[in-house]
Amino acid sequence: QGILERLDAGEIVIGDGGFVFALEKRGYVKAGPWTPEAAVEHPEAVRQLHREFLRAGSNVLQTFTFYASEDKLENRGNYVAEKISCQKVNEAACDIAREVANEGDALVAGGVSQTPSYLSCKDKAEVKAVFRKQLDVFMKKNVDFLIAEYFEHVEEAVWAVEVLKESGKPVAVTMCIGPEGDMHGVTPGQCAVQLVKAGASIVGVNCHFDPDTCLETVKLMKEGLQAAKLKAHLMSQPLAFHTPDCGKQGFIDLPEFPFGLEPRIVTRWDIQKYARQAYDLGIRYIGGCCGFEPYHVRAIAEELAPERGFLPEASEKHGSWGNGLSMHTKPWVRARARKEYWENLKPASGRPYCPSMSKPDGWGVTKGARELMQQKEATTEQQLKELFQKQK
Amino acid sequence: QGILERLDAGEIVIGDGGFVFALEKRGYVKAGPWTPEAAVEHPEAVRQLHREFLRAGSNVLQTFTFYASEDKLENRGNYVAEKISCQKVNEAACDIAREVANEGDALVAGGVSQTPSYLSCKDKAEVKAVFRKQLDVFMKKNVDFLIAEYFEHVEEAVWAVEVLKESGKPVAVTMCIGPEGDMHGVTPGQCAVQLVKAGASIVGVNCHFDPDTCLETVKLMKEGLQAAKLKAHLMSQPLAFHTPDCGKQGFIDLPEFPFGLEPRIVTRWDIQKYARQAYDLGIRYIGGCCGFEPYHVRAIAEELAPERGFLPEASEKHGSWGNGLSMHTKPWVRARARKEYWENLKPASGRPYCPSMSKPDGWGVTKGARELMQQKEATTEQQLKELFQKQK
Amino acid sequence: QGILERLDAGEIVIGDGGFVFALEKRGYVKAGPWTPEAAVEHPEAVRQLHREFLRAGSNVLQTFTFYASEDKLENRGNYVAEKISCQKVNEAACDIAREVANEGDALVAGGVSQTPSYLSCKDKAEVKAVFRKQLDVFMKKNVDFLIAEYFEHVEEAVWAVEVLKESGKPVAVTMCIGPEGDMHGVTPGQCAVQLVKAGASIVGVNCHFDPDTCLETVKLMKEGLQAAKLKAHLMSQPLAFHTPDCGKQGFIDLPEFPFGLEPRIVTRWDIQKYARQAYDLGIRYIGGCCGFEPYHVRAIAEELAPERGFLPEASEKHGSWGNGLSMHTKPWVRARARKEYWENLKPASGRPYCPSMSKPDGWGVTKGARELMQQKEATTEQQLKELFQKQK
Amino acid sequence: QGILERLDAGEIVIGDGGFVFALEKRGYVKAGPWTPEAAVEHPEAVRQLHREFLRAGSNVLQTFTFYASEDKLENRGNYVAEKISCQKVNEAACDIAREVANEGDALVAGGVSQTPSYLSCKDKAEVKAVFRKQLDVFMKKNVDFLIAEYFEHVEEAVWAVEVLKESGKPVAVTMCIGPEGDMHGVTPGQCAVQLVKAGASIVGVNCHFDPDTCLETVKLMKEGLQAAKLKAHLMSQPLAFHTPDCGKQGFIDLPEFPFGLEPRIVTRWDIQKYARQAYDLGIRYIGGCCGFEPYHVRAIAEELAPERGFLPEASEKHGSWGNGLSMHTKPWVRARARKEYWENLKPASGRPYCPSMSKPDGWGVTKGARELMQQKEATTEQQLKELFQKQK
Repeated sequence: QGILERLDAGEIVIGDGGFVFALEKRGYVKAGPWTPEAAVEHPEAVRQLHREFLRAGSNVLQTFTFYASEDKLENRGNYVAEKISCQKVNEAACDIAREVANEGDALVAGGVSQTPSYLSCKDKAEVKAVFRKQLDVFMKKNVDFLIAEYFEHVEEAVWAVEVLKESGKPVAVTMCIGPEGDMHGVTPGQCAVQLVKAGASIVGVNCHFDPDTCLETVKLMKEGLQAAKLKAHLMSQPLAFHTPDCGKQGFIDLPEFPFGLEPRIVTRWDIQKYARQAYDLGIRYIGGCCGFEPYHVRAIAEELAPERGFLPEASEKHGSWGNGLSMHTKPWVRARARKEYWENLKPASGRPYCPSMSKPDGWGVTKGARELMQQKEATTEQQLKELFQKQK
Repeated sequence: QGILERLDAGEIVIGDGGFVFALEKRGYVKAGPWTPEAAVEHPEAVRQLHREFLRAGSNVLQTFTFYASEDKLENRGNYVAEKISCQKVNEAACDIAREVANEGDALVAGGVSQTPSYLSCKDKAEVKAVFRKQLDVFMKKNVDFLIAEYFEHVEEAVWAVEVLKESGKPVAVTMCIGPEGDMHGVTPGQCAVQLVKAGASIVGVNCHFDPDTCLETVKLMKEGLQAAKLKAHLMSQPLAFHTPDCGKQGFIDLPEFPFGLEPRIVTRWDIQKYARQAYDLGIRYIGGCCGFEPYHVRAIAEELAPERGFLPEASEKHGSWGNGLSMHTKPWVRARARKEYWENLKPASGRPYCPSMSKPDGWGVTKGARELMQQKEATTEQQLKELFQKQK
Repeated sequence: QGILERLDAGEIVIGDGGFVFALEKRGYVKAGPWTPEAAVEHPEAVRQLHREFLRAGSNVLQTFTFYASEDKLENRGNYVAEKISCQKVNEAACDIAREVANEGDALVAGGVSQTPSYLSCKDKAEVKAVFRKQLDVFMKKNVDFLIAEYFEHVEEAVWAVEVLKESGKPVAVTMCIGPEGDMHGVTPGQCAVQLVKAGASIVGVNCHFDPDTCLETVKLMKEGLQAAKLKAHLMSQPLAFHTPDCGKQGFIDLPEFPFGLEPRIVTRWDIQKYARQAYDLGIRYIGGCCGFEPYHVRAIAEELAPERGFLPEASEKHGSWGNGLSMHTKPWVRARARKEYWENLKPASGRPYCPSMSKPDGWGVTKGARELMQQKEATTEQQLKELFQKQK
Repeated sequence: QGILERLDAGEIVIGDGGFVFALEKRGYVKAGPWTPEAAVEHPEAVRQLHREFLRAGSNVLQTFTFYASEDKLENRGNYVAEKISCQKVNEAACDIAREVANEGDALVAGGVSQTPSYLSCKDKAEVKAVFRKQLDVFMKKNVDFLIAEYFEHVEEAVWAVEVLKESGKPVAVTMCIGPEGDMHGVTPGQCAVQLVKAGASIVGVNCHFDPDTCLETVKLMKEGLQAAKLKAHLMSQPLAFHTPDCGKQGFIDLPEFPFGLEPRIVTRWDIQKYARQAYDLGIRYIGGCCGFEPYHVRAIAEELAPERGFLPEASEKHGSWGNGLSMHTKPWVRARARKEYWENLKPASGRPYCPSMSKPDGWGVTKGARELMQQKEATTEQQLKELFQKQK
């Protein structure tokens, strides 16, 4: 059954987690460029991560094609050991995802994301051409549906949806925005309306903010759609980091990004709470993004097992609410084998010399330059210098 | 070259990370029993983790045989989907480790750990027979050397060393103790002396405490050996969690164990600091235990690259001290591409409603019962009930 | 010179601090009733606190008549050792304030605050009669001007202003609200407009929230007045506690109120920052409320000394920005004798087992009962019971 | 009844709080010099503070003669507005203390503390002469007994005790040390033994550390005395700040000293816990030092009211365990009117951008210079320069 058949029938669809962060920790992705050449260089590592998400309960395997647009790969090309073509990366990612999806009952979704071309002010035709190149591969490899994700500007997201719709396949789209809306100040509600009008069947948010903030944003999208009398399925794929101290641009601006985020990692119990709240809000495509490990996805599947009627395969290695501890030799550890314990625990950081919140960076530059960058993020040193120059 | 040749020549040997925690997050190990049946059930997952550690710089691949003694597997057998024999698990673990070791320049170490038999007061002969069963497999599979690890009682560790020494292969031994010593109050210095006298060539600590505490303990071991005019190589494989608030029995007693430890996870920079301090203390076998992911091991290898003269393979996907960020479009993110930034960062937890330290559990039971359990940890409900009964 | 002459001339007027909290710590006020019978019982203690504020730079001494309305004193009368009449308390408070004001260059302000009569739904005439009784004393004792403070309902504040205006003396009015407005949802801007229209020459906020939040609220008041083309002087007298985690009703609902607020106490440097921000916002009547000690008021006077051209008397015992430390014998303590040090210090709590934020209380009761109480806070057990009864 | 009669009879004697910190906040003492010229300049302020402590339950009023030795006053003389003689300060302090003591049932204790003469290596005779000058005033004014307090070097404390013993009056002595002992490494147990042998009837600690640490130190003193078969009464007067992160020299080295200590201030409930633990340890002279306000002393008296059979006068304005809240209109505030609530509260700091612990300062200087200073703290710039010079 396709993605829309499932969602239309009221099923819960569980997404997967973000690959670039997970594979960075495993040694296959470089932080900074965040490009997915590992699909060609180390297919076994990508395959294994897909397998773990499948086993954890994911119903959708996203092709590992984040930032795999031609302009991005070229731009960051110096980080890739051997020059690997954009097409090769996208094809390999499709093949791996399909191979693992066939091991279970999962759909394959081809994914595109924001492009340097847009940020460096290329025109609509040029930006669309970039998306179309990836789409050609997805069509050739016959993915089940398409996701446009990680957009900060609704304009670019609309262009992406328009291109993907040319395929005739169902299109989902998620923006990496918070309740304040996109970088030009378009509200979440307005974003959702534009995206559905452009042809998306599923809308929501991914990345940049923690589960609480993402749900707040999807709620605003839902209200926008209701006000406009539009129908669409809702989707959320948040960070697995606590980020109550974020500014408008999300976790990138936090001083801990990306190499000091450990104390912010959410627990499986945080995810169970998120899954329940997402469900109660009417979201039916529930997954994760950066920071999600397989056990976080399993937590979604376990929380919603009563609604779905089954547990994921990986639950054979997990007792619900910690009940695997019930056989521990120490009575005080056995006492942790219950829901109330983990729901109420306020976990300590073990870092008494550290604060609990940070001030986002980015306030040292002149306000004008900052705004320029927020609007059209510069992609090269040269362009950035020019922006600053213009500013002065 | 064997482990002792390397260490005798003054080389730094980098260990790997703890498998049970890493594979629990990936969905292959059950918290509570913590047994390694995945070596048989899901060899591809175990193989992939070995590969990631190898790629990150590990010179030793430990067979995934933690808690793989016959008495433990039987005791916790109800958690294993299909009944899998102890021998099969140990053999599979050896085969996988050797396969991956051959892909690079790594040694294979066969590992044994504390047994239920000892904790339930079986006699020396019985306990030794348990170790010997695992040793038989290691000999058949011809591992390169042997590690006895995770012992809370020096007596049991000595027995393990004695058995392993029968093989003629080099023996390393690490206890999961802190500066207060073993569960009978034997100091770290005394433990080290007994273990070297029993035949260990390498001594140190693993698990239960954070890097700072482990180094403090190894320092005491070193001083004990010096006072006794004994020579041995030093080894440390700490947790990748901050645990300044632990009591004598380590992180098991912390309320966050094992499902709420996320905010305590150490950063790669914490590990670089640890690697440097371990080196300065004279430790030459430097690895990790629970919580270590491949990127933590890579951090050891990167910190000590000047001494060793080379970087691990996985560093191709990592800029030293975050320099992969130097091409970021935002100037304030580029400003993070340097050593001083990450060395001085005090990472926020994003959890303002949580404390920074916890009180260890275990104080609700009567003091006598607690002490009994500390001495001979009970392994079955029945035995525990009897202990409590006796107590009253 | 009167209060309006000073403010009209552009002078900065420094208020004093809250008496009930300061005298509670000194042993003269009972937390719970918070009534000011100490003016009669222990005039020397009240006089000394006035003196300290005067010495610290206060230009206004408020009579210690908080909650000194007849209905409040009767209601809480069982806490007062001997029955002391409302009139006697108000008269004694006026006499003490005048005595100390004459020792320096300070004005005496007679103060009224919210009444049980309003909260128990008495009508306008009855509530006004309560204010008028206190006003009679203020007129007899010839205070310099009048302050109506600590109102949660703009309706009651308007009634108070109307009564005080009958005197012909200048009237200041402050509400204990945050940016969300009063308990009926009237915005700060609307509150300010109503109060100025009722005759107040000075408007602003006091109590219930920390300096940051109070300034945010006054900013909204200022914008409301500007939009309505009304003119008034602005005033702020916040808490000396950090309360970023407050809900709509302020610090009363925080679990730490009132006996565990110590870790929230602001430093003198926090107050210097507050004074500067208040000044920059155009506020010219700058003082404090609960938690303010004399050294906090001195910090306002020291921060604004460049604008005012003089330091308060108490600065003879204070080096600006800690420069009294410059003669310390330890070089690292001497290094603290400078502005940058204290401005940038992130002071530790010394409480690693405590969180940095709390969830406000009040969510256990039914929502309806809570709302009832927010609208008309019940004053007796009986009334409260009835409210709950009605609710069910 | 004298101090020894009371203690010998098993009575609990409640001390007062530290005057320099309390009066600094009130505007009468300058941080840095910390000298007590206010006894002459502003006797009403000193008198009022004595009164508040008496009212809170203090059985002893210490003369406000801290740092009132001639060498100290001269050394810091430039901070004192008018030149006031040492004798005048000491006499005024005695007169005020006696005046207030006569208002209740309190003893007057004349106090001496560490001297610049000792720290600048003057010989025994010179240092003793300094103490003797203050003692002459105490004898003339006929104080009830004598306290030598705030000594970091047991040698100087012994000299002080020897001088004070010449008077024939009972002598108490407290050192400002922690469990690590004095600045020359003399253990608390050894310090206590030397001091009792020198003639002290009461020994203990004051200042520099929080209640927990002080009790730990007094425990070591007690054990030292028991081992030496010496008898003495025990005394503790700790800080009212949480300082778990102190080094050997106490809170002076914490980055927050002295102007950022607010978040560390202890609650009244912390003090009740301290009073109980002190009592259980056998301490019968229980008071406080820097940071103690009258309500902290009252908390000692209230906690030990069952043992003593009465409450202090100031308890008329305090409901035990917050029961003054039982009439509050909000049910969730009424719910705080009980012991369990306040005992278990983990008060939040309201400062999410601040850590919970700090690293003590003092590590920037060379180790040698630091040690020199620890041994003989330099008192003038010149001497310090010489110390550093010698060091290089």
